[in-house]
Amino acid sequence: MAPKVAVILAGCGFLDGAEVHEAVLTLYHLDRAGAAVTCFAPDRDQFHVVDHATGEPTDEVRNVRTESARIARGAVEDLSELDVSSFDGVVMPGGFGVAKNLSDFALSGHQCDVNPDLVAAVGTALETKTPIVAICISPAILAAALKRHGITGATVTIGSDQSTAAAIETLGQAHQVCAVQEISVDETHRLVCTPAYMLGPGPAGVGEGIGNAIDHLMRWIG
Amino acid sequence: MAPKVAVILAGCGFLDGAEVHEAVLTLYHLDRAGAAVTCFAPDRDQFHVVDHATGEPTDEVRNVRTESARIARGAVEDLSELDVSSFDGVVMPGGFGVAKNLSDFALSGHQCDVNPDLVAAVGTALETKTPIVAICISPAILAAALKRHGITGATVTIGSDQSTAAAIETLGQAHQVCAVQEISVDETHRLVCTPAYMLGPGPAGVGEGIGNAIDHLMRWIG
Repeated sequence: MAPKVAVILAGCGFLDGAEVHEAVLTLYHLDRAGAAVTCFAPDRDQFHVVDHATGEPTDEVRNVRTESARIARGAVEDLSELDVSSFDGVVMPGGFGVAKNLSDFALSGHQCDVNPDLVAAVGTALETKTPIVAICISPAILAAALKRHGITGATVTIGSDQSTAAAIETLGQAHQVCAVQEISVDETHRLVCTPAYMLGPGPAGVGEGIGNAIDHLMRWIG
Repeated sequence: MAPKVAVILAGCGFLDGAEVHEAVLTLYHLDRAGAAVTCFAPDRDQFHVVDHATGEPTDEVRNVRTESARIARGAVEDLSELDVSSFDGVVMPGGFGVAKNLSDFALSGHQCDVNPDLVAAVGTALETKTPIVAICISPAILAAALKRHGITGATVTIGSDQSTAAAIETLGQAHQVCAVQEISVDETHRLVCTPAYMLGPGPAGVGEGIGNAIDHLMRWIG
């Protein structure tokens, strides 16, 4: 039986959704590793839509789950339907959508709200010892979700950005400085993180880090 | 000096734009190979916008160049500004956008019109012996562009789809059956093609084929 992995997407585009390279390179490395992937996303409007050529917000309205289907190449499950106990692992690619659509970390930092379905998914992962891979900015939102469950002292990385690392530490977690191809590993809580486009600069290094994170996930899954 | 490669995008989403996995895996393999990439797309409205969760067209209007910036992670150059003589190679990922936004192959098959800037780019590539990589459905549109320049007998592949292969042969080119990880190579016209999601089924095989195509491109570039 192929290991079952849930991938949580937050739209399609690094400024208002999932970071596209990170999401695709996650699917690529999971497919190479023989995992059976199901994609999930919240069924809600994006916080906003950003013109990725200019970086400016537009007046458009787009649905997070619908846009995520561009990356998944077809229907994406509603995040509210995610039952982590049916999966062997969970992966969260990054992008501003994680900090805007799955939480309000982009606005509120360490005081952020986190999507309750994501908080519940993290809770089930902790209970069932299901490993979580968090990429790019996702470890900061993971840090907040862990705190909701009373977990502190978990080790994560977002690379080396000082203000994001400080927010993670304010949330009671430990930040480990990493280069783009590196991963942080928390054996106790079964968390793997990699900085990806928090550091960049390009898809080669980002893909190497994500590949290392997926390799570690698959070793845990066995 | 890093080899300069132009990547031509057709939007962001396999049903109405560039195939996202193919485009990202192209950028990934080019970055790994040390190429300096510039992305180009036509500055026009998409033929239509498709809801990728349902497969149904919507009433939205989106610009091809603006949506392509989601894949490029920033501004994309106007295809009308592409001067192939300034580049060492050209890569065309696939997706229905190539057959809807860069041509009307999806409607008209072998009788299709091709974006004049793309026809001009192919002409300059032929004159300057600049290699072209065409992925997925792109070889069919390349076949039409080649015919505009009086070229026949060029070898390409779109995998094994019989109706698309027949259209390519009606356009005077030769179709070579390939598996997803394989490439067709035309030494005379310096063309490399790989079937990608014309065969699928997933990003691992698609990425292997694109990696083989980029490897061949880089050997030609030297």
